[in-house]
Amino acid sequence: MAKPDSGGYRGAGLQLLSRQGVSVGDSVRVATEDGEMFGVLMPRYELASDDYIVIKLKSGYNTGIQVGRIKSITKLQKNEAAATKAPEIIEDDRLPKIALISTGGTIASKIDYRTGGVRAALSASELYASVPELASHASIDPEVLLSEYSENLKPEHWTMIAEKVVEKIRTGKYRGIVVSHGTDTMHYTAAALSFALQNLPVPVVLVGAQRSSDRPSSDAALNLLGATIFAIKSEYAGVFVAMHAGTSDDAVACHIGTRVRKNHTSRRDAFESIDVTPVALVRNGAVEMQEKSMIELAKRSDDKIDAKTKFDDRVALLKYHPGFDPKLIEHIAAAGYKAIILEGTGLGHVSKECFLALQKAVDVGVIVCMTSQCIWGRVRMTVYDTGRDLLGIGVIPLSDMISETATVKAMWALANTKNVKKTMQESIANEISSSIPIEKA
Amino acid sequence: MAKPDSGGYRGAGLQLLSRQGVSVGDSVRVATEDGEMFGVLMPRYELASDDYIVIKLKSGYNTGIQVGRIKSITKLQKNEAAATKAPEIIEDDRLPKIALISTGGTIASKIDYRTGGVRAALSASELYASVPELASHASIDPEVLLSEYSENLKPEHWTMIAEKVVEKIRTGKYRGIVVSHGTDTMHYTAAALSFALQNLPVPVVLVGAQRSSDRPSSDAALNLLGATIFAIKSEYAGVFVAMHAGTSDDAVACHIGTRVRKNHTSRRDAFESIDVTPVALVRNGAVEMQEKSMIELAKRSDDKIDAKTKFDDRVALLKYHPGFDPKLIEHIAAAGYKAIILEGTGLGHVSKECFLALQKAVDVGVIVCMTSQCIWGRVRMTVYDTGRDLLGIGVIPLSDMISETATVKAMWALANTKNVKKTMQESIANEISSSIPIEKA
Repeated sequence: MAKPDSGGYRGAGLQLLSRQGVSVGDSVRVATEDGEMFGVLMPRYELASDDYIVIKLKSGYNTGIQVGRIKSITKLQKNEAAATKAPEIIEDDRLPKIALISTGGTIASKIDYRTGGVRAALSASELYASVPELASHASIDPEVLLSEYSENLKPEHWTMIAEKVVEKIRTGKYRGIVVSHGTDTMHYTAAALSFALQNLPVPVVLVGAQRSSDRPSSDAALNLLGATIFAIKSEYAGVFVAMHAGTSDDAVACHIGTRVRKNHTSRRDAFESIDVTPVALVRNGAVEMQEKSMIELAKRSDDKIDAKTKFDDRVALLKYHPGFDPKLIEHIAAAGYKAIILEGTGLGHVSKECFLALQKAVDVGVIVCMTSQCIWGRVRMTVYDTGRDLLGIGVIPLSDMISETATVKAMWALANTKNVKKTMQESIANEISSSIPIEKA
Repeated sequence: MAKPDSGGYRGAGLQLLSRQGVSVGDSVRVATEDGEMFGVLMPRYELASDDYIVIKLKSGYNTGIQVGRIKSITKLQKNEAAATKAPEIIEDDRLPKIALISTGGTIASKIDYRTGGVRAALSASELYASVPELASHASIDPEVLLSEYSENLKPEHWTMIAEKVVEKIRTGKYRGIVVSHGTDTMHYTAAALSFALQNLPVPVVLVGAQRSSDRPSSDAALNLLGATIFAIKSEYAGVFVAMHAGTSDDAVACHIGTRVRKNHTSRRDAFESIDVTPVALVRNGAVEMQEKSMIELAKRSDDKIDAKTKFDDRVALLKYHPGFDPKLIEHIAAAGYKAIILEGTGLGHVSKECFLALQKAVDVGVIVCMTSQCIWGRVRMTVYDTGRDLLGIGVIPLSDMISETATVKAMWALANTKNVKKTMQESIANEISSSIPIEKA
């Protein structure tokens, strides 16, 4: 068992640290063949290799250094228990105020390196301690609303988050709202807030981290800073997702809440806008709008939010594949589902063997919509017989709406609108490209 | 109603053609501000704009020219009914022989511009007529096995195709096999052939077209030529997919049959290798192997094919989403399915509300496997509690196998192997990256 102050290090890393009398939390200078680095020694990430040590640089960026490459490590300052003792927070009323609503996920978690457990770590003081630059941009009011891995979030949680956002905005105190969230379903929640909160006066920015702040190359600090800067400086209101923009370490991309997808299990730049470019990059403290995004954004305003925060989860998302049994459609229709989002092949197809089951579902009032499992591009159901037949059955083509967004939208439309079919084909929150003519079902 | 020889042209296009006395099939010279083009006037594509005419260039590549840009159009040679009268086929026994098995789809179809209907057009003579370069590379034996849109293909069709490939190979006559296929489910069929036909002595190359040969910028000719050249010149055997490589018009990418996905509904470069690079590019008649692909390929050999061509379609592919009802898992388990491929979130997660239903499914002998809806990256189920809990339940992590391939593999493993769980975790046809340690369930 490693000693408490060894930060979970073992093997070569522990030997080096013991020899030099360096403990976790100490400020250190590390010399390698490539030069010198200054930072704070972090605890070892649970799953990291034994022969690396982790240094948190002044930027908040963590870097792993292989023990074999280290020529010397020198303690500059003893651990001041920065991580456990909160620094004084200087309330600066001249800074814009941001409400930070924490819902859980990697960005809001701290791995206890002794137990391997995860605990919420999102008091204002801890925030400023881990991302010092935040304090120079904004005065942040954090609130822990949920502490959940995002795979456990359900439509009822979307309602809770939406209502909390409304509550914060109605105080009139905030320049913007940041929602920290697990990345697994962040894009689903972003879509949900996009439909639930229309006519937003300020930006609502969801942010997560692919790698926790204890890990080398964590994206937590950069993303949180980027989201905060966008929430403060953006001219535009609406729901956005702010995440690491590429393999470089200096840019955060801001995506439209209905047009973004998690496209990689582990990369920091996992989130990508689909069929559009991100609306903005945040780099060096500034917001760079991307003109190519083709999305018409709403400006900040003094308007009243149009909040419709309920969802009806009787929606099935079915991905078609060869060998797909049409009986599954019959079961869904009989089991009380109100809508089916099909992830068809190509331009929006399923096998002709499904036609009868789909016709029966439509006939009993189930809303059946078509998206494409290709992810990019749009369904076009007038090109081939199969598509035309499906239109004839009453399947609703959703153009370039991604299937995840379509699933969320159907849940929202069922709970809040009278003509669900019509609503599904209208672009409410930029979920359909306005430049593309919508095919009629 | 347009006159038969007007090729379906209307409006500005028809006026220009009538004025100049040019009919469909005529060889023409077209002068625009950008220069001169020589080719054959093609029928108007049904959905094309009225003010374009389509010219098939000598390369087989079709291009659309806006009528307003045309300075002059001159008839060089009267329509010789090349499309209806077959040219003499000169059998050249010195050329390598290729078997072309046609299963349907856009590449094998010809749009009848009068009725809008689609008909198979894949006699050898029609092939040589539309892609003249083919005749200089290979002696092609075409056979129409199926005429189906690929969304209608089922596991029993995979068996038919596999058995036809075996029959062709066993003649010993062919340097390689080309299978033309609709693009909607070509990657599923490629995966199916990869598992069904192991120890292949020659390459089996699936090829399709995103745009039919009657359309401007069709990829049919380039893809068919690229697939044929790869089938002839590749040193390597196995199952591959050959499709347009980018937005340029000169390269075809060859993908591993188990590692490719249709990622765009309409672009010609819709097919992408996932988590690996394509194994080869075919350009200017040559095969350029891509060393970065990291895939270990089998060389051509005189080995006997190991053919296991049956599939058991009692496999469900379930994509998890917030609001997913665990009862659907219970239904699947009760309905006689033998395996479930979950498309989880992130590193391979579903909500904890699904745990009980999954445990019940595992307990009654359903094989439950985990892939990620992120598409790129791999599931890693030991990082978070959720993943560890799922492993505890008996869910099998499939590393970086894509969900489409996993679905096909489960259908194959159920029909052909005794230990399905073990088979799912072994890499049989490069469907799992060998460089990555496989997590144990």
